[in-house]
Amino acid sequence: MSHIESVRLTDEQTLVILDQTLLPGETTYNTLRTKEDVFNAIVALQVRGAPAIGIAAAYGAYVELARHSYASVDDLTRYFYEVKAYLAASRPTAVNLVWALERLEQVVVQSWSSVEELLLALREEAEEIRREDARVCEAIGRHALALLPHDAGILTHCNAGGIATAKYGTALAPLFLGKEAGYSFRVYADETRPLLQGARLTAWELQQADIDVTLICDNMSSIVMQQGKVDAILVGCDRVAANGDTANKIGTSGLAIIAKHYGIPFYVCAPTSTIDVACLTGAEIEIEERNGAEITDTWYEKPMAPAGVKTYNPAFDVTDHSLITAIITENGVLYPDENGQFEVRQHVEV
Amino acid sequence: MSHIESVRLTDEQTLVILDQTLLPGETTYNTLRTKEDVFNAIVALQVRGAPAIGIAAAYGAYVELARHSYASVDDLTRYFYEVKAYLAASRPTAVNLVWALERLEQVVVQSWSSVEELLLALREEAEEIRREDARVCEAIGRHALALLPHDAGILTHCNAGGIATAKYGTALAPLFLGKEAGYSFRVYADETRPLLQGARLTAWELQQADIDVTLICDNMSSIVMQQGKVDAILVGCDRVAANGDTANKIGTSGLAIIAKHYGIPFYVCAPTSTIDVACLTGAEIEIEERNGAEITDTWYEKPMAPAGVKTYNPAFDVTDHSLITAIITENGVLYPDENGQFEVRQHVEV
Repeated sequence: MSHIESVRLTDEQTLVILDQTLLPGETTYNTLRTKEDVFNAIVALQVRGAPAIGIAAAYGAYVELARHSYASVDDLTRYFYEVKAYLAASRPTAVNLVWALERLEQVVVQSWSSVEELLLALREEAEEIRREDARVCEAIGRHALALLPHDAGILTHCNAGGIATAKYGTALAPLFLGKEAGYSFRVYADETRPLLQGARLTAWELQQADIDVTLICDNMSSIVMQQGKVDAILVGCDRVAANGDTANKIGTSGLAIIAKHYGIPFYVCAPTSTIDVACLTGAEIEIEERNGAEITDTWYEKPMAPAGVKTYNPAFDVTDHSLITAIITENGVLYPDENGQFEVRQHVEV
Repeated sequence: MSHIESVRLTDEQTLVILDQTLLPGETTYNTLRTKEDVFNAIVALQVRGAPAIGIAAAYGAYVELARHSYASVDDLTRYFYEVKAYLAASRPTAVNLVWALERLEQVVVQSWSSVEELLLALREEAEEIRREDARVCEAIGRHALALLPHDAGILTHCNAGGIATAKYGTALAPLFLGKEAGYSFRVYADETRPLLQGARLTAWELQQADIDVTLICDNMSSIVMQQGKVDAILVGCDRVAANGDTANKIGTSGLAIIAKHYGIPFYVCAPTSTIDVACLTGAEIEIEERNGAEITDTWYEKPMAPAGVKTYNPAFDVTDHSLITAIITENGVLYPDENGQFEVRQHVEV
């Protein structure tokens, strides 16, 4: 089984990314050599997924810094801040982007005796960001795998896969690890309208990994559960509130309600970095509303709804903690307490 | 408010149909003059919806018969059977098609003194089929309307609208009648993947009738219910079993489960002709599986899933009677009995 590396630093000090906008039709890797290349790739969503964007930004900053000469450490430091400000503006709402660049800044502000030494340290920090993410994903996968039968039917939503992270992904991590360990999962990927991440990305990733995957429409989740084809639901998340309420791709909450109806476990795979203890409940989470043309026009040969029709296009929804069987983090599995609340402040070792 | 007539007989003895394959981009009416015209329009799905197909077949048979001369009633009778066999083959699984042609046959087999008299009787029978359907739809709409607040938020799925019937439709009938009576409904139409009947047809029909309609993706039904935007769900049906289990467009059962979770009434609008008392429960209803290309390719500029991916594309699902608040027929509203079963054999006058 081959792992897709969506973001990779080469020995030639260039950055190679999988162009996710061309999936599933074309598997194209682009070589990025300058900060402009990196900026444009992020803006164009060729790199997507919060962890993958953070890694691309860190690698990208290093690649840009390493291709120039500097008279002094101060010169390099000055240029770092210029590059940081430039790349940070590529996707202002991507938290991981700024977070990764600030990790590099913490390296820059230490005292360095040479330009070479600082560049090496920046490269190492960028590599460490990638390695950390891979470790987090693998740990989530290991904890999740322990909860699944060897021949489980799994339903997943959107794309919480390897290409959104350094490796393995979050919700898909147990599927890749299970494949390595000889499990025979049957996976249902729902297409995830309107942007079709399930059809374009999840189905492709699982197919690449030779995992048994069946593509369905979002509105077919009830019938596959009714027919006994699903033993567990695995989804990723964008933000988890202190009580366990979880924001994730639109459609997640409906899936959780249907799973509960059929008595099927519903697992949220969440790096602890997505747990926001300052956010008490899901009611505090603002829902991004996107352009209605994504529903009426995107991907189509011609518009598929009448001109001028009103649309409502929320990108996320909030799943109530009462619908979640467990939250699976890199530190262990969190179950609700006797009041049905998750104690997400507490890390559980398993 | 204008009513769209999807199938209409003209004074010139021709049949005019709304070409539903061109919606919502083009509103085109085609004139059909021969049995071949009618056959082709049905095969190409320019006419769709069981009642509309039945009406088109009856009108179509009359139009074909009326354009020829006959030496005797026997000659006309012979040609009727030829036309009947020909049109019946256009969509062999459409029950209403054969049913409508058999209604004409019951006229033909009576004793007639002249060709003119029989042709007139056939035209009258075809008109009666259309009028009966319009009466059924209007009665369903009237019963449903009595259950809805004046400013109700309504969610509907697929297209159970006027263009599938003679007039008004089933699930959309109360919306048209409500509009006439000054109600101010806010309607959410889900797009209904993979064939997008909600986006292409329902949104268009409601927009034409100047009813406030908002198009959403199927996976957004949970968030609009969570946000309190929906007071009732109205859906049509393809078949109702004796215990109230209901087969309808794929996604209906998930919608019913989500509605129950949020405590929102879920109404099935069903002409009594769709109630199949010989079918004891939904488990006996066979689910049509359609070509997976409808999920991966149809409507798109290029395929939106990896080549060779497995798909599962059931066209219908079965909603358990325990999830249905009431079944609304032309004869009245059926509620579950003390055991939670619908007594669908019994017609209730309201």
